[in-house]
Amino acid sequence: MCRFLVYRGREILVSDLLAGSEQSLIRQSYQAREREEPLNGDGFGVGWYAHDIDPVPGVFTSTRPAWSNRNLRRLAEKIRSTCILAHVRAASPGSSVTEANCHPFQYDHFLWMQNGVIPEFVRVQRRLRKRLADEFYNMIQGTTDTEHAFALFLHKLRKHLHDYNLDTLQRTLAKTIRDLTKLHRETGSRETAFFNFALTDGHNIIASRFASDPHVEPQSLYIAQGRRFVCTDGVYDMTPADGRVEAVILASEPLTSDREDWTPIPANHLVTISPELHVDLVPLD
Amino acid sequence: MCRFLVYRGREILVSDLLAGSEQSLIRQSYQAREREEPLNGDGFGVGWYAHDIDPVPGVFTSTRPAWSNRNLRRLAEKIRSTCILAHVRAASPGSSVTEANCHPFQYDHFLWMQNGVIPEFVRVQRRLRKRLADEFYNMIQGTTDTEHAFALFLHKLRKHLHDYNLDTLQRTLAKTIRDLTKLHRETGSRETAFFNFALTDGHNIIASRFASDPHVEPQSLYIAQGRRFVCTDGVYDMTPADGRVEAVILASEPLTSDREDWTPIPANHLVTISPELHVDLVPLD
Amino acid sequence: MCRFLVYRGREILVSDLLAGSEQSLIRQSYQAREREEPLNGDGFGVGWYAHDIDPVPGVFTSTRPAWSNRNLRRLAEKIRSTCILAHVRAASPGSSVTEANCHPFQYDHFLWMQNGVIPEFVRVQRRLRKRLADEFYNMIQGTTDTEHAFALFLHKLRKHLHDYNLDTLQRTLAKTIRDLTKLHRETGSRETAFFNFALTDGHNIIASRFASDPHVEPQSLYIAQGRRFVCTDGVYDMTPADGRVEAVILASEPLTSDREDWTPIPANHLVTISPELHVDLVPLD
Amino acid sequence: MCRFLVYRGREILVSDLLAGSEQSLIRQSYQAREREEPLNGDGFGVGWYAHDIDPVPGVFTSTRPAWSNRNLRRLAEKIRSTCILAHVRAASPGSSVTEANCHPFQYDHFLWMQNGVIPEFVRVQRRLRKRLADEFYNMIQGTTDTEHAFALFLHKLRKHLHDYNLDTLQRTLAKTIRDLTKLHRETGSRETAFFNFALTDGHNIIASRFASDPHVEPQSLYIAQGRRFVCTDGVYDMTPADGRVEAVILASEPLTSDREDWTPIPANHLVTISPELHVDLVPLD
Repeated sequence: MCRFLVYRGREILVSDLLAGSEQSLIRQSYQAREREEPLNGDGFGVGWYAHDIDPVPGVFTSTRPAWSNRNLRRLAEKIRSTCILAHVRAASPGSSVTEANCHPFQYDHFLWMQNGVIPEFVRVQRRLRKRLADEFYNMIQGTTDTEHAFALFLHKLRKHLHDYNLDTLQRTLAKTIRDLTKLHRETGSRETAFFNFALTDGHNIIASRFASDPHVEPQSLYIAQGRRFVCTDGVYDMTPADGRVEAVILASEPLTSDREDWTPIPANHLVTISPELHVDLVPLD
Repeated sequence: MCRFLVYRGREILVSDLLAGSEQSLIRQSYQAREREEPLNGDGFGVGWYAHDIDPVPGVFTSTRPAWSNRNLRRLAEKIRSTCILAHVRAASPGSSVTEANCHPFQYDHFLWMQNGVIPEFVRVQRRLRKRLADEFYNMIQGTTDTEHAFALFLHKLRKHLHDYNLDTLQRTLAKTIRDLTKLHRETGSRETAFFNFALTDGHNIIASRFASDPHVEPQSLYIAQGRRFVCTDGVYDMTPADGRVEAVILASEPLTSDREDWTPIPANHLVTISPELHVDLVPLD
Repeated sequence: MCRFLVYRGREILVSDLLAGSEQSLIRQSYQAREREEPLNGDGFGVGWYAHDIDPVPGVFTSTRPAWSNRNLRRLAEKIRSTCILAHVRAASPGSSVTEANCHPFQYDHFLWMQNGVIPEFVRVQRRLRKRLADEFYNMIQGTTDTEHAFALFLHKLRKHLHDYNLDTLQRTLAKTIRDLTKLHRETGSRETAFFNFALTDGHNIIASRFASDPHVEPQSLYIAQGRRFVCTDGVYDMTPADGRVEAVILASEPLTSDREDWTPIPANHLVTISPELHVDLVPLD
Repeated sequence: MCRFLVYRGREILVSDLLAGSEQSLIRQSYQAREREEPLNGDGFGVGWYAHDIDPVPGVFTSTRPAWSNRNLRRLAEKIRSTCILAHVRAASPGSSVTEANCHPFQYDHFLWMQNGVIPEFVRVQRRLRKRLADEFYNMIQGTTDTEHAFALFLHKLRKHLHDYNLDTLQRTLAKTIRDLTKLHRETGSRETAFFNFALTDGHNIIASRFASDPHVEPQSLYIAQGRRFVCTDGVYDMTPADGRVEAVILASEPLTSDREDWTPIPANHLVTISPELHVDLVPLD
């Protein structure tokens, strides 16, 4: 599986967020801690919003590992944003390392990514695609379960692509996960499906921490809130909010050494972050 | 569109075939002659058979242009084969330059490539995929019309994948082209579809030169036969057969200056080359 | 050789500058007009300044052609700057298409690029490197004449890297060209060297149009000045300055159809653009 | 540092050698055992000889990790050789992941690679280059200590590039290591230099296991000899020689579970393998 993070809050330099420290996501690309297999070297991606330009996010992806990518390093030092997603990939077996398979996936003003897996996705793919309206059927460029799940989410949201609120997004994601679980179960597979999705439009954020088998621990997912996320001399710090939250991070692994900053998202829950940075948890049934 | 060639005959060094001369396919990657737009810089691919190892061909593809690829140059100087395919790509609008979209496409012991286009393929894609058995539905990795057409061809051949002769292949390709034309027409598109396909299993070769509108000239395709295809001091030569054909080349453009060596395949015909290098033409209705 | 452009003036979106029109630099990557060989497909690079972040420019380069690069397209739509350089490369023989050979080259707050060639550069390289202080000797990562020329320029400026004005830069570039010409002549080569260099620090710009043989026409280089450079519905326009120049472009080829907007830089001249966008020409002896 | 292997003996399929098993070099690209940092994801390279074609070896390199490279997998299944080198890279700090920095390095009929490091190589580079004849000075394309060391080796051998025996090669490598150690020491650096080099011409092989500080353990290096190296159902086996050695492997880590097959090369020794597969050890002073 993979590692990801979502940031929203005060404007921050991408390199301060991704490359600053020993706990950084770029570090996790070759030395993740909370996974048996510590390597996420099958490409990466960064997405960010420039609201002063237009609502469509910028995206930079590569099939090369994040840790040695000169373009990533140079771009990250020049891009500032109030909403940033990043993903380092460990490809599922059978899903190749190609450009079309790099997260995050973008559609219009949305970005989507996943740390998870539908086991034997090839057996799900066809029935999933059948359900899609042409627009979402045709947007699919690669072979990942993640991109297909995104198409399903968008299909479910299709009548409200520009007319929704956080609640709409949350209910649509819940339905998407329910559908994916059903599609997976119908293959007869007894393996557990894991769905840590994250979606944003640059203002609203929703994410899930889910395992299809309630007795199995989902992939890790944490949230931190504070006044400001800063990187000083290679050390990350989330300064306390004291009532005024101005920075929120969702991440597969804590980015600061002080683990008290990081609250695990409970198993089989959605987390929503409103444009005003209000955080809520919603159980998935 | 693109440029391609197929070689079968005496063992030849790949670099002698692809890189030796001013008329070479690698030259055509940046300076094709028989096309308005002379550039084929959207990646390339080479496929070849090593019958002494196994029936599955080797394939080397890249999204970088052929003309500057050091790996291609080095490999080509070390690989010899009796059956070689090569392709330089000019991507159709909407079909991105990714690894999964590079020709030739391989399935089991088959190689497939195309110089052509289904206009507005995105409107054909879904209905084409519906017809495919799961095995061929799931083999599709990219978004090209070519790979989808290959899946359709294999689907039609599915009961005879290891039990066919040149005649079977020829009839299956004819049916595939008929189907693709029909699928394209059903979209309501009035543009012309062009299908210069080439398929081989390392022994048999079939190719087409086809335009869906009989009043429109298909993309160019030539055949040359001789005793031996050689490259001496940057000059290609096909030595006359004098009754013993031991080298046959199908190519989008003549490779030697002596155009008399090169017979155009007539419009809307298939050409078949038997394992004994016997060449036949079959009209497509 | 290559094609390049430098922009300075009002903030502009990189994609409006590079991708907007039929005359755009990205178009020139596969269809340059003022050269015999119209192809510049051996990689590209973009550099830009974000003065609100720091003085070091951002750089994005790739060995793949500009025309099909999804990352370039996506980034260009999200980056705005008052100072932008871009380059599409046609590699000199012997200088390979590798990441380390992509223009523009960056050192501290400087960007440098070239459309030109030192013939038989390999015979110049060693003697050039001998002259360099360690810092500039060691900065060289690739094998291009351009990067070596940059090291020589920086070496000559070394005592004033942060303490110079436009005049200093202009004299240093003139000396660099004189030295390169001398180094080239000492090899005994009778071929003409071409040096269209461009250098900027984000505020000052200098460029050259030079051929070592005064009877030979240098590579083309044009300048346009106006109130604003805009791209509307695929058409570039430089609106007249009417006394207030707020946008200046140096480019290998005119970007607008109205060639009257574009003044050729005279042969064997330097052109300087001050932080206030004042343009001057200085003859090279 | 890195992991490498050299094979000489009966013809073997590259994929059987590199990809067959849990101990394979491709596995070592993401899970090396005998190193603190288990990752070698900064590109890879394979070199092989096709003596029936010419004496110059084929080389395939990539800056992408070996484990996910489709071209590598496909090529490896089609290339057979009696002499194969392979290398997975963990870049030294400061030496970037570019094509020009991938091992093995080729010059004429020689291949060269390294698992090791000259600390602070940038301070050695200039003085090393000064010693080189133009031919070897100009062959350098990248920035690795390895390529520079190769140039020094070739320079020392320059009068005997086509007229040498194993003894010549062995003495030249010893001298090269002595020189590199001296060059390194002259920088004042107190860090240990590690030099596990391997060189072949397709017939003779020499390699070193060396640390400049005799109290420090060099990087690991093993040798195995047998009748045949085979890969059956994912298990490597070196069948006993019983007096007739027909396969020899030098490798950074044992490739089979049976560690008795693998003899460590003693610290600060050269190992030589003759065209007849006779193995000798020579102490380095």
